[in-house]
Amino acid sequence: MEPVGRPRAKKGILERLDSREVVVGDGGFLFTLEKRGFVKAGLWTPEAVVEHPSAVRQLHTEFLRAGADVLQTFTFSATEDNMESKWENVNAVACDLAREVADGGNALVAGGLCQTSLYKYHKDETRIKTLFRQQLEVFARKNVDFLIAEYFEHVEEAVWAVDVLREVGKPVAVTMCIGPEGDMHDVTPGECAVRLAQAGANIIGVNCRFGPQTSLQTMRLMKEGLRDSGLQAHLMVQCLGFHTPDCGKGGFVDLPEYPFGLEPRVATRWDIQKYTREAYNLGVRYIGGCCGFEPYHIRAIAEELAPERGFLPLASEKHGSWGSTLDMHTKPWIRARARREYWENLLPASGRPFCPSLSKPDA
Amino acid sequence: MEPVGRPRAKKGILERLDSREVVVGDGGFLFTLEKRGFVKAGLWTPEAVVEHPSAVRQLHTEFLRAGADVLQTFTFSATEDNMESKWENVNAVACDLAREVADGGNALVAGGLCQTSLYKYHKDETRIKTLFRQQLEVFARKNVDFLIAEYFEHVEEAVWAVDVLREVGKPVAVTMCIGPEGDMHDVTPGECAVRLAQAGANIIGVNCRFGPQTSLQTMRLMKEGLRDSGLQAHLMVQCLGFHTPDCGKGGFVDLPEYPFGLEPRVATRWDIQKYTREAYNLGVRYIGGCCGFEPYHIRAIAEELAPERGFLPLASEKHGSWGSTLDMHTKPWIRARARREYWENLLPASGRPFCPSLSKPDA
Amino acid sequence: MEPVGRPRAKKGILERLDSREVVVGDGGFLFTLEKRGFVKAGLWTPEAVVEHPSAVRQLHTEFLRAGADVLQTFTFSATEDNMESKWENVNAVACDLAREVADGGNALVAGGLCQTSLYKYHKDETRIKTLFRQQLEVFARKNVDFLIAEYFEHVEEAVWAVDVLREVGKPVAVTMCIGPEGDMHDVTPGECAVRLAQAGANIIGVNCRFGPQTSLQTMRLMKEGLRDSGLQAHLMVQCLGFHTPDCGKGGFVDLPEYPFGLEPRVATRWDIQKYTREAYNLGVRYIGGCCGFEPYHIRAIAEELAPERGFLPLASEKHGSWGSTLDMHTKPWIRARARREYWENLLPASGRPFCPSLSKPDA
Amino acid sequence: MEPVGRPRAKKGILERLDSREVVVGDGGFLFTLEKRGFVKAGLWTPEAVVEHPSAVRQLHTEFLRAGADVLQTFTFSATEDNMESKWENVNAVACDLAREVADGGNALVAGGLCQTSLYKYHKDETRIKTLFRQQLEVFARKNVDFLIAEYFEHVEEAVWAVDVLREVGKPVAVTMCIGPEGDMHDVTPGECAVRLAQAGANIIGVNCRFGPQTSLQTMRLMKEGLRDSGLQAHLMVQCLGFHTPDCGKGGFVDLPEYPFGLEPRVATRWDIQKYTREAYNLGVRYIGGCCGFEPYHIRAIAEELAPERGFLPLASEKHGSWGSTLDMHTKPWIRARARREYWENLLPASGRPFCPSLSKPDA
Repeated sequence: MEPVGRPRAKKGILERLDSREVVVGDGGFLFTLEKRGFVKAGLWTPEAVVEHPSAVRQLHTEFLRAGADVLQTFTFSATEDNMESKWENVNAVACDLAREVADGGNALVAGGLCQTSLYKYHKDETRIKTLFRQQLEVFARKNVDFLIAEYFEHVEEAVWAVDVLREVGKPVAVTMCIGPEGDMHDVTPGECAVRLAQAGANIIGVNCRFGPQTSLQTMRLMKEGLRDSGLQAHLMVQCLGFHTPDCGKGGFVDLPEYPFGLEPRVATRWDIQKYTREAYNLGVRYIGGCCGFEPYHIRAIAEELAPERGFLPLASEKHGSWGSTLDMHTKPWIRARARREYWENLLPASGRPFCPSLSKPDA
Repeated sequence: MEPVGRPRAKKGILERLDSREVVVGDGGFLFTLEKRGFVKAGLWTPEAVVEHPSAVRQLHTEFLRAGADVLQTFTFSATEDNMESKWENVNAVACDLAREVADGGNALVAGGLCQTSLYKYHKDETRIKTLFRQQLEVFARKNVDFLIAEYFEHVEEAVWAVDVLREVGKPVAVTMCIGPEGDMHDVTPGECAVRLAQAGANIIGVNCRFGPQTSLQTMRLMKEGLRDSGLQAHLMVQCLGFHTPDCGKGGFVDLPEYPFGLEPRVATRWDIQKYTREAYNLGVRYIGGCCGFEPYHIRAIAEELAPERGFLPLASEKHGSWGSTLDMHTKPWIRARARREYWENLLPASGRPFCPSLSKPDA
Repeated sequence: MEPVGRPRAKKGILERLDSREVVVGDGGFLFTLEKRGFVKAGLWTPEAVVEHPSAVRQLHTEFLRAGADVLQTFTFSATEDNMESKWENVNAVACDLAREVADGGNALVAGGLCQTSLYKYHKDETRIKTLFRQQLEVFARKNVDFLIAEYFEHVEEAVWAVDVLREVGKPVAVTMCIGPEGDMHDVTPGECAVRLAQAGANIIGVNCRFGPQTSLQTMRLMKEGLRDSGLQAHLMVQCLGFHTPDCGKGGFVDLPEYPFGLEPRVATRWDIQKYTREAYNLGVRYIGGCCGFEPYHIRAIAEELAPERGFLPLASEKHGSWGSTLDMHTKPWIRARARREYWENLLPASGRPFCPSLSKPDA
Repeated sequence: MEPVGRPRAKKGILERLDSREVVVGDGGFLFTLEKRGFVKAGLWTPEAVVEHPSAVRQLHTEFLRAGADVLQTFTFSATEDNMESKWENVNAVACDLAREVADGGNALVAGGLCQTSLYKYHKDETRIKTLFRQQLEVFARKNVDFLIAEYFEHVEEAVWAVDVLREVGKPVAVTMCIGPEGDMHDVTPGECAVRLAQAGANIIGVNCRFGPQTSLQTMRLMKEGLRDSGLQAHLMVQCLGFHTPDCGKGGFVDLPEYPFGLEPRVATRWDIQKYTREAYNLGVRYIGGCCGFEPYHIRAIAEELAPERGFLPLASEKHGSWGSTLDMHTKPWIRARARREYWENLLPASGRPFCPSLSKPDA
């Protein structure tokens, strides 16, 4: 009899990437579950895993249907210093929820951790690595398929995370939450990528804090850094679902609209198809989303990559490509929207004539 | 033993309204479930009820937690002519799902139906009333608490719906999907309200097709029409969660962004608190939402009305009033956002400098 | 020998209008000369007439070249109570300057006066009429061709002006600075027009304070008021050269941008051609501009009406219709702009991504 | 007796700059006179000098009153290949007009020439230098105070111009019409500045094609280039009066709005005060404007620099600093605009809700 939670015949993440498959990530849990009423903004901790497991399971299911090849455990910032004694149970249940849903499809489970609150104050390498190791032990026990260290604003701490995560022999992905200006100590994206590759990370990239276009600029710089150093790593991008051309170095948290007025910045599905194609053309092969990415945004990635992947996601049974389901509408001007050129060229209005296009970041 | 589905000690909808309570409606199923991957845009039919009942149950649960006093059956356009033989099962299961969730709280179940596709072509009163009566029979058998006839663009058809719905002795609410310019035959909002009141509707108002500000203008005209005719009815508004100051008579379906590019128009929670207060001040006592209203929008209604209602909704355990949870952020400029004045006065940017504020409707 | 200043063989203003000619007015002096350095914003008085006559003469010349059929004396607010003893000389020199330039072409000279500063405080009909009569005496002595009473926000005072101006037997035009909401005592535009026609004004309309589209709405209401009363008068519009869809009742002075930040609202020449055609279609036959109208805006009126008038203005020697002079540019994408469809459909960007589209008026 | 046209006791341009005075340039002739009806867009040639000398004289007078220390001859592109036999007379009369006005104040006359139409096709150094030398001979004969070679998009041609202009021993200023991306052969701004300084230009900078903020970026790069090469030159900026953050390398001519839809981009006087201060802080000591700069924009430069210069320009008799003349308005909310903070922080609306903030350049 097979032990519970052990991945079966699925190809591993590196097998997929090494064989040049493109991997679709999942979307954001914090913002999505905040809007559904299960996460508290400001704290952004994943108590929902134990308080409302059906809500978490439902969101995993939606991302799976949308085409995600990876379900990340909802363990963002679920460390002992953020959640006290609850941390262990949250990590364990989160693994079970992701595994339960993943096994209904071809998706892998990734155990996820992120930067600590400590680094900013202490840079206590030993204590920080202990926090990482605690989460890792749960991930190992629950036998996740691979590991993701994400949302690092200092490359030094990200390297520490990679050091720890490599201890159990599973593939390691690492993403920073930086933009083209680099990390908070002014290490450039190219140099960040180099240090992470040298630390042994298998997959390298960015997540969160910047919108699609800005994140792809950062990815280009990371790619060039690796190339110039003769290093190899798979590339990964999981950007915001918000447009943020006006961000400063600190990303969207410094925008005046963060976190309760970001609605007008939400990307359309067509924006995400464009982002996906550009990421693909840049050589990125792990493409997903972060805060603001709802299930339909992940479906947009999967639909854009359907030619490369050879199939549509389950959720496309409820979605006509490029608006094609509108072609039976009774109004002719709505039928006229059932085509790719229409949606590719649409410049959507905000309906807010007293609002500007851009904001000045607070910092 | 109690029969399944019988409402117990709950006060009925008219008891609540007659005793001057304010009633919080729920939000939109079609757009929300489309983004989650369970509804197909263009068709907008509720197969999800039988195909993905857990997704529907989850959304009911979220609206209940957000403070909704009414859970509407997800039976929009679920008539025989739209769904063929599936219609009956969909209506029955939808009632069960709503009831199951409603009974976990103090919410009522409303059986909902809408305008037919036939009227535009035939105005065959007999056939149309038969379609209404079919849905009504399921609602009566499942013993819903009251009935809502919604999304009518012609008052004549809405009157037919009221005629039918009154047959079973339950309270009847009716909402039209019109704006200040009136119905598609140029009957003014005031006159529409009068005819619906004369037909015996207990609760009268608008839902869908227009954003918060525009819908409140229509409500003002309905209220004045009733007043000028010396008629009485409770007022109800369930507007779009999108800003649409640029709509023409046909509402948001004629905007170029409908239905796949409406993101920049999504209302913030603060926009909805403002709408709620204005609706309340206008005398509207049944306040909910339609397409674009996510659970957090309903929570915004409930939070704005907490002084009147005397309590906060369950989902407010995950929401600090006016952003108060930000007051512990490490960045001082983010802490400075933890106050009402900040969010009330914020004019959120779209992050889209190539996009206009308003669109020209296609018709 | 002919007396100085006597109009010669030119057709009078009523002869022109009665024979269904369209008359092109001139543009704004105050804002244009403020930008050239000769008028002080806030005071808005025409000292330039005596201090810098060449600057005034130059602007008259530019409007004449642009196609104006009427040159208005630069005597706005040049009453004794605003300018003390200077007033008489200013009025006299202003008449001479306008006449000198007008006689270089086919243009008429109109003596212009406006509402007093007194009315708001005293409504002293005798004193106000004395002020009007003082200016009128200069106009009569200088033998202007007709009279314009303009920029009235109360119809009562406008009627007093018409009463006085009719005393010398010259044609009288009168324009109010109101929008669709009517005058400051809530007299509707239609009723204003009726009272002015009953007072004996020959030409009736609006000038200033509102942009092209808003002013045409007001004109429509004036026209309907006259029609419903069975009264006849020629219609005249001289709107702002600024777009002001966000104005309240008080017009552009209440906008936060008034008077030093109105630049982004300046109409293009194509906007003015559109306004001209719509005014013409509405039956308005005296079409000019007010604050913000530069010479090229007047040329746009004259070019739009060239088919009706049978000729182009002199300044069109320096202007290819609809951008046709671009067709020899070396860059093909600039040559592609040499056509009507291009400019008619262009939605010009503001280059200001931190600025909104609309403002909230201060009152 | 003094020969006509000889500058008398005035300090020369280099005396002024060497003694650390700041020099105020003049504004744009082509766009301003186009709007007044005397220049044809597309051709942009200065026939107005001979056809309408009073219009040219008037504009010189306005710039002088506004505070310009330099009046540039209106000889832009007035070469033999552009204007055939007219060229010589135009250059000579232009010198006389500028001198006549300049001698009414403390301004210097600068003879101005620009890039040829030939360079793009032939790069025939001999022929191009001959064209420059022809204009120079007129400038020398008319004894202008110094020379400006402006609007060069290739540094090679600009160097040729400097070579020729240095032949007569007068100070030479040279400005390129490039942005931060450099010249059309990809020579960086820093390298352009170096080559021009090595060619012997006394004053170096940019004019035209880019708005205030973009032009200051280019100036910073020029300054750094000179510093890194150990070269010295005075810095000069004469940017557009239009905001063009969305320009590509080719500048504003590639924007879809060029040249007939640029109105919403026109800078306010406050924008220009900000630009002036930033230019000054950057070390630029010759500050003026190009296309789109009206007299009041030049006045804004002079008012911003009044503390450094020790005096206000003549035209400030008609302008209260920071809107101070509004403090006597009858409406209190307009009086409230009579202060610096108000205008510094105003974000002016476009009044155009269907228009975007930015455009995509055509190339």
